[in-house]
Amino acid sequence: MMDDKVTQQHWLKALAAFELSQEELAEFEQQLSALSAQHLQAELRPGLSNNSKVEQYFYSSDLPEQAKSFNQYSALLQPSVLGSVNTTRPDFVGHMTSALPSFMPLMQKLMAALNQNNVKLETSGYFTDLERQVLAILHRTFYGSEYGEQAESFYQKTMHQPKQALGVFCSGGTLANIMALWVARNRLLSAYGVAEKGLMAALMSLGEEGYQGLAVLVSERGHYSLSKAADVLGIGRDNLVAVAVDDQHCIDLKDLETKLATLKAKRIKVMAIVGVAGATETGSIDDLKALADFAQGIDCHFHVDGAWGGAAIFSQRHRHKLKGIERADSITLDAHKQLYVPMGAGMVLFKDPERVNAIKHHASYIIRSDSKDLGAYTLEGSRPAVSLLLHAGLHLIGREGYGALIDHSVHLAQEFARIIRSSRDFELILEPRLNILSYRYCPEPYRSELNKALAAGDAESVVSINRLLSEKTIAIQVAQAAAQKGFVSRTQLHLPHYGDAPIHVFRVVLANPYTQVCHLQQILEEQRLIARAL
Amino acid sequence: MMDDKVTQQHWLKALAAFELSQEELAEFEQQLSALSAQHLQAELRPGLSNNSKVEQYFYSSDLPEQAKSFNQYSALLQPSVLGSVNTTRPDFVGHMTSALPSFMPLMQKLMAALNQNNVKLETSGYFTDLERQVLAILHRTFYGSEYGEQAESFYQKTMHQPKQALGVFCSGGTLANIMALWVARNRLLSAYGVAEKGLMAALMSLGEEGYQGLAVLVSERGHYSLSKAADVLGIGRDNLVAVAVDDQHCIDLKDLETKLATLKAKRIKVMAIVGVAGATETGSIDDLKALADFAQGIDCHFHVDGAWGGAAIFSQRHRHKLKGIERADSITLDAHKQLYVPMGAGMVLFKDPERVNAIKHHASYIIRSDSKDLGAYTLEGSRPAVSLLLHAGLHLIGREGYGALIDHSVHLAQEFARIIRSSRDFELILEPRLNILSYRYCPEPYRSELNKALAAGDAESVVSINRLLSEKTIAIQVAQAAAQKGFVSRTQLHLPHYGDAPIHVFRVVLANPYTQVCHLQQILEEQRLIARAL
Repeated sequence: MMDDKVTQQHWLKALAAFELSQEELAEFEQQLSALSAQHLQAELRPGLSNNSKVEQYFYSSDLPEQAKSFNQYSALLQPSVLGSVNTTRPDFVGHMTSALPSFMPLMQKLMAALNQNNVKLETSGYFTDLERQVLAILHRTFYGSEYGEQAESFYQKTMHQPKQALGVFCSGGTLANIMALWVARNRLLSAYGVAEKGLMAALMSLGEEGYQGLAVLVSERGHYSLSKAADVLGIGRDNLVAVAVDDQHCIDLKDLETKLATLKAKRIKVMAIVGVAGATETGSIDDLKALADFAQGIDCHFHVDGAWGGAAIFSQRHRHKLKGIERADSITLDAHKQLYVPMGAGMVLFKDPERVNAIKHHASYIIRSDSKDLGAYTLEGSRPAVSLLLHAGLHLIGREGYGALIDHSVHLAQEFARIIRSSRDFELILEPRLNILSYRYCPEPYRSELNKALAAGDAESVVSINRLLSEKTIAIQVAQAAAQKGFVSRTQLHLPHYGDAPIHVFRVVLANPYTQVCHLQQILEEQRLIARAL
Repeated sequence: MMDDKVTQQHWLKALAAFELSQEELAEFEQQLSALSAQHLQAELRPGLSNNSKVEQYFYSSDLPEQAKSFNQYSALLQPSVLGSVNTTRPDFVGHMTSALPSFMPLMQKLMAALNQNNVKLETSGYFTDLERQVLAILHRTFYGSEYGEQAESFYQKTMHQPKQALGVFCSGGTLANIMALWVARNRLLSAYGVAEKGLMAALMSLGEEGYQGLAVLVSERGHYSLSKAADVLGIGRDNLVAVAVDDQHCIDLKDLETKLATLKAKRIKVMAIVGVAGATETGSIDDLKALADFAQGIDCHFHVDGAWGGAAIFSQRHRHKLKGIERADSITLDAHKQLYVPMGAGMVLFKDPERVNAIKHHASYIIRSDSKDLGAYTLEGSRPAVSLLLHAGLHLIGREGYGALIDHSVHLAQEFARIIRSSRDFELILEPRLNILSYRYCPEPYRSELNKALAAGDAESVVSINRLLSEKTIAIQVAQAAAQKGFVSRTQLHLPHYGDAPIHVFRVVLANPYTQVCHLQQILEEQRLIARAL
């Protein structure tokens, strides 16, 4: 047992951390700002691969016994901050993480200062109402047209209704996709008591109606979170049926029809059809209208994964590309992608605000059934009021601003596509539908040889030339990243006209508002120099 | 199609939000700080129930077309901030959300400024290593003793190992519990290909070995997230078997034995036994050592839900209460509870760093199999670097500080229990094991009548007196919350000596370092005044 006096000293020291003076806080904030500024100016962009030189900073697994001073901690933090990835760099165009509006860190600070827990009114106060409003605004943006002149009264009636929810916030698109499919599964099998008795019992009952199992359909470009969802929900990754894509990497409706017929013949029940609105690898958008028709035809849940591309709804120029999304039963949207909110903010919207009741849950000390708490409808329990961050974005950037950001990114992608197309050493793999682009290194004489082999129907040569080009593309990407110059990512794509073997391509995500055409030209120049040195 | 000039104007305006001057930022930050300060000083604590007066501020579902100025937005935000719940108030002791160390909002601001995505090294840099280190520190705190003198080399070897993970961060305890049971399910059924073929196919194969289904066991005090997990994972809420509790609200080992025997007789396979370490409603801690023995005896996964109580490991005075936790296969821990990190930070630790491979997943453009990315092992995809916040806590509060905070809270709970026990009008329901306490209103003459009825074995009178006391307890809690005075929550507990009907009790969570004995006395005084006026 410890000495009471020592305990008291520790306690007072701990309490002091809650009651720092304005001066102490200002000084620490100043130190953190200086670190952050130093990082943003640094040319260094490390951490792109496993690195034992990095690990030296993080080798100790000892629990710190005593509190450090702020000066000590700032010094300790320096390598981490300087070693974080500068996602604001205009030539960092490989992933979906980019610069944020400068007011966002301030909003995040406010959010932490208020530290609301949106699971329940008792710990969220007005923030539950604010969250319901943000969800209503988004819902109306996607679905409002469906209600015509009734829209205003529909939203007035539903947005603050205890037993309804127009959607839920969650930590990101993966959880949003899981939520959507969870709702679809439980609604489909509610009569068989899936939530209570489990999936096996429910499927046995479904079996008595002659069904052999469940399936979810999505194109080959579906995000890997859907496969995770199929695993978690007990459906099985193999039962996430991958539908072929056309040459635009959109779902092939013929193949969808074939797959649906096969499943019907096998007496497999289709639980959901998922449309991709902004594929992670190619930016392509499925024909959502056609998918809505298919889903309607077999009376299954129609989900749209708009984690990336859903934000195009804000652009008057590009929103038509999402046509049909207003018929989706649920839509996934990531605020931390093209709505420029800090990491950790996803949403799933439900067209029918009653549908979330399929997964409703209660607990006696919290989320009672008569309250408007959103916690009854979320996969997560306690959770931050991230809706506040999107609320700030919606008001401080506005529809016009978000639309302009989308327009600019798509324009940039088109410009980059034009540059690649007119180059002699790079091959554009796909015309960008939104702001994701794929291309690869493909100089002479490989280009002519490839064309010859294609014309001659020489599949073997096509594969071997593509293999060489893939090797070069990978080598360039790795070298460019390691050189801490421009950063593009890479992925594998299966292109029917190149045969069965997938090819490796550069993947460019253009959402950073600092990125200009000159940065993209520079990235190509760097790649050329690296290629020459290979 | 819009006019290009207008588009250009919108674009420049949007870009301006990314490039605010130091002066603009300072002014907006000042406005937000003023709002926040105004809120923290306010006596108001609204939003505790559905309220149409609140809804008036949040009635519009229109997407804002144009960006507002910061002044306009601050004004718009005022009711929300003032209407949020002041979780720092010393008499706000009803939930697990409390005051935070004052440096936390600054760390959260830094985190947003850096906006790292810990799914992958390419967007997290050194923060993946930092996260692995934080997980190693926590793992060693719980499991280090198991490795004796080998501990240092064990952690050196595993913490940065690509194909291993000592744990994962997630947005909260609910996801942590889901992750733990997902791992348990997939590991148990991996030979039957549960991840690929689905739960039904796997259970059919298990059925060929003579098993009829799966079950998870936890005491009646298990958190509702476990029921959600059973639903999501396809096991079924009914197959989360609730084991009775003893008079300390700890799992009744006799009943566990009976339930295990029943399941064995029914040929139901036990997938996991879950120990509760700090029950949400009562703060009670199961006999983890005994549960470890049971789990070992039937070779099943042993999970400990330490979302609340796990932090007691930091206290030299109270860590012995967690004895046996070092034998758990997995442990859930919430950093946003008693580690005083802002909302949105949970963890699950895995004793065996290989075990997470049961749910591993990859995607070709991201999280490749040879990298040390933690994204391969998380339920979530893109996610913030919340580990940074805990890193700050560990270094700026230290083991000593966290220990002192726990010691103080437990001491406060014991003091409050003493006060209630010696009062004539309140009944202590349970001696606090940690820092959660339940009591109810129970004045004369009810107390004497109840004791008489109990002595006489008059079950009917016991129930009717308890019903009256429950009504009064509820009325007091509601009135106190509505009066915006002290806030305690309430829940229902089933107490064997009071018969089958549950009773309603006040629930007090003592983790706010600002709370002192005088605040608790004042809460009782308020409740007495309310009771008199009833």
